[in-house]
Amino acid sequence: MHASTERDYALERRQALELIRDARRFVLCGHVRPDGDCLGAQSAFAGLLERLGKEVWIYNADPLQSQLEYLARDTNFRVYSGGELPAHDVAVMLDFCEIERTGALMAPLVAATSRKLVIDHHLFHATPWWDAAYVDPRASATGLLVYRIARELGVEIDARMARGVYTSIVTDTGWFKYSNTDAETLAVAADLVARGVEPARMYNAIYQRNARTQPLGVARALARLEYAADGRIAVIDLPHAEKGEVDLPDGDDVLDLVRAVGVVEVVLFLRELKDGTLKLSARSKTDFDVNLLARAFGGGGHAKASGATLPGPLAVTKKRVVDAAIAQLAG
Amino acid sequence: MHASTERDYALERRQALELIRDARRFVLCGHVRPDGDCLGAQSAFAGLLERLGKEVWIYNADPLQSQLEYLARDTNFRVYSGGELPAHDVAVMLDFCEIERTGALMAPLVAATSRKLVIDHHLFHATPWWDAAYVDPRASATGLLVYRIARELGVEIDARMARGVYTSIVTDTGWFKYSNTDAETLAVAADLVARGVEPARMYNAIYQRNARTQPLGVARALARLEYAADGRIAVIDLPHAEKGEVDLPDGDDVLDLVRAVGVVEVVLFLRELKDGTLKLSARSKTDFDVNLLARAFGGGGHAKASGATLPGPLAVTKKRVVDAAIAQLAG
Repeated sequence: MHASTERDYALERRQALELIRDARRFVLCGHVRPDGDCLGAQSAFAGLLERLGKEVWIYNADPLQSQLEYLARDTNFRVYSGGELPAHDVAVMLDFCEIERTGALMAPLVAATSRKLVIDHHLFHATPWWDAAYVDPRASATGLLVYRIARELGVEIDARMARGVYTSIVTDTGWFKYSNTDAETLAVAADLVARGVEPARMYNAIYQRNARTQPLGVARALARLEYAADGRIAVIDLPHAEKGEVDLPDGDDVLDLVRAVGVVEVVLFLRELKDGTLKLSARSKTDFDVNLLARAFGGGGHAKASGATLPGPLAVTKKRVVDAAIAQLAG
Repeated sequence: MHASTERDYALERRQALELIRDARRFVLCGHVRPDGDCLGAQSAFAGLLERLGKEVWIYNADPLQSQLEYLARDTNFRVYSGGELPAHDVAVMLDFCEIERTGALMAPLVAATSRKLVIDHHLFHATPWWDAAYVDPRASATGLLVYRIARELGVEIDARMARGVYTSIVTDTGWFKYSNTDAETLAVAADLVARGVEPARMYNAIYQRNARTQPLGVARALARLEYAADGRIAVIDLPHAEKGEVDLPDGDDVLDLVRAVGVVEVVLFLRELKDGTLKLSARSKTDFDVNLLARAFGGGGHAKASGATLPGPLAVTKKRVVDAAIAQLAG
């Protein structure tokens, strides 16, 4: 992190606001497999720029996840398919700051002479390469930073921008459940609802679109649940679906249900893919650092949520991972 | 509802505030099986009254559900076990207005010469019997009304009151998911977090205390899922757990997972009890009125969530309920 104090961040943010105010043509780009915070912030920031009379293009390496398609009703998300980007003055990275994470967009972004602006709420440990940064690692979501920018530039927040910021907030706070849910987050959410966001409709759009087979897939996974270390560790090893068995499209439901068990501190979910490799998802409810665990197996993430890709066979790898978790719990 | 206009409600509320300000000894009572809104509002209102120097006793017919026990850390909840109530000037009904719903408390409440105050956010269709009412059917939770009362009486909201009001709000809005989540609800939540509420800790306390067997019980129930009417109706018929099978302590997880299927509009969950009777839980995602359906089987509730108790056998009753739902869907 190059801005080592809050005062540095504040100075940088003022410079970023000047760049936003003065430039005319903007390309917004996201990280590969853009999530709700990235896409919501893009939609809101595009709205902000358009209200300021700017030209805006959004490019991502990947399309929207289906549950976030409602954002595309009033925002044009383009999937980059090669070639030059439109002539632009500023390229904006929203929700990340490593240009490598733009995937196929990296080459044309580097080739463009545009100034590079980062709007992000993550900590960054490398050397800054950008021209301007609006960063606050204490903000619950990048969309919240777009809200602050709108306020600071005196831009009225319309229904579309409100929907984008709300999407950012709810997806990055686990719908107001995670510990990053602070008073500002809830106060902004209140203002956005006053501006037309309908929480129940958005919840329905994002979280109530599962496939008909999802409950049976969840049942199949939950039936494989085992506990270790007096229930402090919960482990599920899910073999690849055989013919006639139901695949599990989304593992979050399984992780949530197992995490909800009172005694459980760590959830380890190993899914076997078609080619025999294993996907580990690890979650922590306590100060047990699953990032440490995942890194021991070549993966990574955060202290509370991490993942790794491992070789099979399932039973052997499961034992290795559980043994490592037991050792870490004891250590 | 006797106060037919908002102006009547407002007048009544001013009179209620006077009663709260002037009286000295208060008994707070809840409905049988008190829920999070009732108990949270009791804790917050007891705190408010104590800050005003009043004497307060809380009496309920039933004890706290285990996941709400954290409220008892700084609030004395008494379970009524017969006899006279302490001498008091005002008895306060929080989160309901039908005195019959106080269960065993009804007789001593009626016998007491105290004035009766209702603080509630439900619509009421019968003749008023109380002396004063602080009612707003548009409020998302009764706890929100206690927050308003504190503001109107100039009482500083302390950490204990904040925790009570937050408990009310999150339990009655489905943790900010239901359509009653309005701007005021979120703005009050923001203020409560600023006053010390930790959302992630409260979520953990309320929703992450499941039994170790809960995931296996959920798996057993989900494995019985069937669809009717092209998936618009989802039905689960869960036989009573045989020896060696896992019982399902809490059905909400099952209802939530099935409701999350995109095509599903109505969820019907029939659980067989030990004595062979069946408990129906019905949920709606659309304008399909499950209260109408439940009433046809002697039950009731709300348009989105209702229930009924039915005779078995399971397979026969399941067919009757599904047929009724299909007919209502077509009608």
